[in-house]
Amino acid sequence: MSTDDRLARVALSCAIEPGEDRMLTLVGELGAGAVHERLRGEESLLPRFHGLDPERVLADANRVGLRFVVPGDEEWPPVLGDLTTAPALQRRGGVPVGLWVRGPVRLDQLGGSVAVVGSRSATTYGADVAAGIAADLAAAGRTTVSGGAFGIDQAAHRGAVAAGGPTVAVLACGADRVYPEAHRRMIEHLAAEGAVVSETPPGGAPMRIRFLARNRLIATLSSGTVVVEAAVRSGALNTANWAGRLNRHLMGVPGPVTSASSQGVHQLVRTGAATLVTSGEDVLEVVAAAGEHLVAEPRAPERRRDRLSHGQRQVLDAVPVASGATTDSIARIAGMGPRPVRDALGRLAELELVERDGPGWRLAAAARE
Amino acid sequence: MSTDDRLARVALSCAIEPGEDRMLTLVGELGAGAVHERLRGEESLLPRFHGLDPERVLADANRVGLRFVVPGDEEWPPVLGDLTTAPALQRRGGVPVGLWVRGPVRLDQLGGSVAVVGSRSATTYGADVAAGIAADLAAAGRTTVSGGAFGIDQAAHRGAVAAGGPTVAVLACGADRVYPEAHRRMIEHLAAEGAVVSETPPGGAPMRIRFLARNRLIATLSSGTVVVEAAVRSGALNTANWAGRLNRHLMGVPGPVTSASSQGVHQLVRTGAATLVTSGEDVLEVVAAAGEHLVAEPRAPERRRDRLSHGQRQVLDAVPVASGATTDSIARIAGMGPRPVRDALGRLAELELVERDGPGWRLAAAARE
Repeated sequence: MSTDDRLARVALSCAIEPGEDRMLTLVGELGAGAVHERLRGEESLLPRFHGLDPERVLADANRVGLRFVVPGDEEWPPVLGDLTTAPALQRRGGVPVGLWVRGPVRLDQLGGSVAVVGSRSATTYGADVAAGIAADLAAAGRTTVSGGAFGIDQAAHRGAVAAGGPTVAVLACGADRVYPEAHRRMIEHLAAEGAVVSETPPGGAPMRIRFLARNRLIATLSSGTVVVEAAVRSGALNTANWAGRLNRHLMGVPGPVTSASSQGVHQLVRTGAATLVTSGEDVLEVVAAAGEHLVAEPRAPERRRDRLSHGQRQVLDAVPVASGATTDSIARIAGMGPRPVRDALGRLAELELVERDGPGWRLAAAARE
Repeated sequence: MSTDDRLARVALSCAIEPGEDRMLTLVGELGAGAVHERLRGEESLLPRFHGLDPERVLADANRVGLRFVVPGDEEWPPVLGDLTTAPALQRRGGVPVGLWVRGPVRLDQLGGSVAVVGSRSATTYGADVAAGIAADLAAAGRTTVSGGAFGIDQAAHRGAVAAGGPTVAVLACGADRVYPEAHRRMIEHLAAEGAVVSETPPGGAPMRIRFLARNRLIATLSSGTVVVEAAVRSGALNTANWAGRLNRHLMGVPGPVTSASSQGVHQLVRTGAATLVTSGEDVLEVVAAAGEHLVAEPRAPERRRDRLSHGQRQVLDAVPVASGATTDSIARIAGMGPRPVRDALGRLAELELVERDGPGWRLAAAARE
C-alpha cells in the first residue's frame, strides 16, 4: 500500500472507533483515502481530526516498538477479510483499517492458532484446564490467542509461555498500554516473545465497545475458539458468538453443573453451538485438517477381562456376583457343557476373576466392575 | 392372556436367561405355549425344565407379594414392544416373556418416566446432582427409574423418595431378593411405595449377563435416560447405548474434565450421542420437547431447520440429495473439520433430516423440497 493509504488509515484508526461497522464498510468500498478525505470535511467530525498528525502518530508508535499493519502489507492476515460479510454484533463489526502490533510474532503466521478465552473470575479448575490446553497447543506448534485479561485469559497465556509456545494477546486498549496494570510483566513478556495486538490506536483506553470490537478480532484471527469458563453473561460468550458467525470452530470445556462459571459454556454445548472438549488433544482434533490429529478415544486401562477368550467371557458372565453357584448351574446359564465350563473356571480363578464360595463359584472383587 | 399362556411364560421365565435374544424372538413369533412345548421336549434343555412347576412358582411368588405381568395384561407397558426390532447388544435383547413386579406402582403408569443412571463409584458431586434431578422429576410428577445399585442409582432413588415422588428399581436379581444387601431398607421402601421389577425369576441371583439384560429394560421403560457419572467402561454406558438404539432421549450431566467419573459422559456428549443437561429443568425440557417418545411428531422441515445451529445447517447444505456421500466428502464441501461434521450428522439423523445410504449419508425425505 502507498504511504498515503497507510497515513489515511492511521488517521482513520485514530478517528474511527474500533469496529465502527458502517465506517469500516465504507472504507472497504471506497478506499481509506477517499473516506478520510470525506470524513475530515464533515463538520460534526472536525473534533475527531483536529490536531491529528498521522505521520507523528506513526513515528511515535514506531519509537515505542509498535508497527501498523494494513491491508496490502505482507503481514496482513487475509482471514480478516471474513469480517467483510459477517453481520455486525452489538453494532460492532467490519474489517479494521489496520492493526497496531508489538512483538516478534507476525500476524500472517497465526494460521492454525487457537483462541482460549473465558471468565475473568475463573475458578482454579478453569485456570488449570485453560493453562493445560494452551500448553498442549504449544506442544503441537500452535499459537494461543487470548485477551490478556484476568482469569482464563491469563491462564491461557501463561500455559503457552510455560510450554515455550508463542502466544498473542489482542487488547481493547492501545497495544502500547497495559491493562490490567497487574498484568504488566505478562504483557511485556508477550511483547518480547509473542505479540500484543490492538485495533485501538496507541494510548487508547479500554472501553466496553472496544472490548466488543476486540472480541471479533480474537475469533477472526484464530481457526477455533475454546471457551473454558463463562457465566451466562460473560464477555467470552460474545467472542463465542463471533466464532460462530465467522464459521470458526467453537469449543467449550464443561465443568461441574454446580459452578456458575461453567453455566455459559454448558449452554453453548447444550444448544449445539459448541463442541464439548476436555483436553488439548480434543481441541487439536477439532481444529485439525482431516486425519491430522485423531484422538485415541479415552480407554480404561486394559482389564483382565479383555484378555479372555469368548468362551471364558461367556462363563464369567454367568457366575453370580454375591453367593456361589455350582459348576453345573453356571454351565446351564452359560448354555455350555460342564467340561469347558470347568476348564474356564480354572483359568478365571488363576486370573483372580472368580473365587470359591462353598461348593460353588462367585465373582471375585476384581471382576465386579 | 389365558392361564395356559401365563404359565408357559412363567416356565420360560425360569428356563430362559433374561434377554436371551433368539429365544425371545421365537416367543414373539410362535407364542409362549408353542415355544414352551418345543423347548421342554429338547434333550439338551431337560435340566432347565426338570422339576419346574410353573403353578407353584407363581403361587410362591404371589405369596411374597410378586405379580407376573405378561403381554396382554392391562399392566403390560406397550413400550416394551420397541425391543422387538431393536438389535441385540452383547447378545442380550428381545421382549421379556414377562416381568416380575413388587410394589404399588404399575408398569403401565411409567409413561414419561426418566431413567437416572451412572457409576457405582460416584463422587459426592455426582450423587448430589443425581438426587437433585430425581427430586425435580418428582416435583414434575415423573417417575425416576434406576437400577438400585450403589452410587448414582441409589442417589437417584433417594432423591425421588425425599421429594415424595414415585421411583422404580429394575433389578438384575429376582424382584424378591435384595442386592446389594446394604440397600435392603431402600429396596423394601421401593417395594412398599414404588416398584421393584425384574425379568429374572424369583430367587434368581445377580450375574453380569442379567445386568446387561436389565439395562435394556431401564432404557425401554423410560422416555429418556440421564447418565450422571460414568467412567469410560461403566455399565451405565450400556444403558446409554440401549437408550440410543431405542430412540429414547439420551442425556448426560457434565462434570470436571479432571474427573475420571465424568469421562464416559463427556464422550457421549462430545460424539453427539447425548444432549448435555445440567439440571432437572434441562431434563424435563428435553423429554417434554418431543412429547411422547413413541410418537415422532411430524414437523415441517422448515421448523426443524430453524432449530439447527449455523454449523449444522452448513453440513445439511452439503449433504447430497440423491446418493450418499461420505463424512469426509461432506466435510470438504461444508469446509468444516470431520469431527464437527460427524457430530452434526448425528444430530441431523436424530432429526430425520439425513439418512444412511451405504457407507455415506444423503438427505432424508423430510429435508428435500
